[in-house]
Amino acid sequence: MTTTTRVTDLYPTRGATEVVTPRQDPVVWGSPDTPGPVSAGDLQALDRDGFLAVDQLIGPDEVEVYKRELDRLVTDPAIRADERSIVEPKSQEIRSVFEVHKISEVFAKLVRDERVVGRARQILGSDVYVHQSRINVKPGFGASGFYWHSDFETWHAEDGLPNMRTISVSIALTENYDTNGGLMIMPGSHKTFLGCAGETPKDNYKKSLQMQDAGTPSDEALTKMASEYGIKLFTGKAGSATWFDCNCMHGSGDNITPYPRSNVFIVFNSVENAAVEPFAAPIRRPEFIGARDFTPVK
Amino acid sequence: MTTTTRVTDLYPTRGATEVVTPRQDPVVWGSPDTPGPVSAGDLQALDRDGFLAVDQLIGPDEVEVYKRELDRLVTDPAIRADERSIVEPKSQEIRSVFEVHKISEVFAKLVRDERVVGRARQILGSDVYVHQSRINVKPGFGASGFYWHSDFETWHAEDGLPNMRTISVSIALTENYDTNGGLMIMPGSHKTFLGCAGETPKDNYKKSLQMQDAGTPSDEALTKMASEYGIKLFTGKAGSATWFDCNCMHGSGDNITPYPRSNVFIVFNSVENAAVEPFAAPIRRPEFIGARDFTPVK
Repeated sequence: MTTTTRVTDLYPTRGATEVVTPRQDPVVWGSPDTPGPVSAGDLQALDRDGFLAVDQLIGPDEVEVYKRELDRLVTDPAIRADERSIVEPKSQEIRSVFEVHKISEVFAKLVRDERVVGRARQILGSDVYVHQSRINVKPGFGASGFYWHSDFETWHAEDGLPNMRTISVSIALTENYDTNGGLMIMPGSHKTFLGCAGETPKDNYKKSLQMQDAGTPSDEALTKMASEYGIKLFTGKAGSATWFDCNCMHGSGDNITPYPRSNVFIVFNSVENAAVEPFAAPIRRPEFIGARDFTPVK
Repeated sequence: MTTTTRVTDLYPTRGATEVVTPRQDPVVWGSPDTPGPVSAGDLQALDRDGFLAVDQLIGPDEVEVYKRELDRLVTDPAIRADERSIVEPKSQEIRSVFEVHKISEVFAKLVRDERVVGRARQILGSDVYVHQSRINVKPGFGASGFYWHSDFETWHAEDGLPNMRTISVSIALTENYDTNGGLMIMPGSHKTFLGCAGETPKDNYKKSLQMQDAGTPSDEALTKMASEYGIKLFTGKAGSATWFDCNCMHGSGDNITPYPRSNVFIVFNSVENAAVEPFAAPIRRPEFIGARDFTPVK
């Protein structure tokens, strides 16, 4: 006997028109009195704003270790040849390396670090697995940014994450100034899901890793959201981290300064929210972008 | 009898290699005890940093007047058809209108305003004329920025300004946030002239109004300057103004926010520094970009 489990699509997207759906899920899934590295006040702020900045998640010595490992990876010809490496169109330099926690034991250890995975477990109220990990290098002298998007929109449409029970952490390995194309978030935008207009092309992921296309909000929607929520630019020293909810509307500008911007980016998903089939795409994305191995981080 | 005046080229540029020349001219030309709208302390700061921010150069009511006039100009089909209008490649919207003090009586009055021309006279220590004026509109949703450059490098090479006795003012007509591609300056960079490598193509100005090419500093030079001077991003409400020396190394990133950035930009040159023949270009640029009418603003 075959059992088919139907999963309701709580967040319709990529249809004929842009559709606004109020968030159907909590932001903080853990009960407020569960002990953990995040304070009750910070959990409240995360619930309200959709993000949480941590001044020094890792110390300067650790930053050096991860930077060295990043440098090693982006200069390794074998890594460059790997499909998990994304190359900047203009400069032909490596911009991202995906699934970095499987490629590098150094980054695997970072994922397992209680300061990292402990926060994710506390926020998501369960065991968690890595839906995606990567290192990002945003070189200076004109490297382009990323246009506005909600990660969940993509992860729901193309990877099949059913609920908003997913949190990202971006750990800075270089200083984020107010000038070098840092992360911008619309605070509070995570409480509303913007279903985007337009069907997903079959190999959308290849293009969208370099620049946004399908899943892009309209000018009208962005204008409305920016006027309602404002836009916050994140700055911080190497070692600082930004935790942000999967449904935050966010983006980044280009970087004409000589200061490169490097970070490690880890997406934790609740094991109770494991990926099903894509909700709005003809095929799944590759596993190095949207994991299908739901083994909890221990 | 014909007299030929030879003008020494104090600032060689556009040759075979990048050449660094220490500034040969004062920054503040007026004597410190000449009364005027700029305080002695502010003149000192301008000399040191190369810029001077004025919180509210014009009031909110005036901002509205100039904004309305800007809107009128950029939506006027006759203005769009005028060669003095520069159109954004991506959006096909008007990005700048040059010689705006000749096109519009409203902006002509602003140029003559003592708060504006009075400061320029005081800083340059003489009567002044308008070398260039324009309104700039940097729409949101991905409008591109301007790469690093010194204005004087161009004005010397292509317009024939002999000395650094020229000051610009950018008056904001919309708010400059830390997110919408505002002006970035390397403080102190005005004390050193970076002569750029590479010959000037004949119609360079047409291309360079949309994006920089000839006159572009090398990555190495920018890295050195940024590490020596740092980079300051200018933010401020509508009505605020930034005065900056002609030789400041400056640029701006792109603007993915929905917030457009509009300003009036006026370049005052000393009547004692009138343009001669270009120092490093085969022909003069058009007069709407580099004036040949040296009549003092009265």
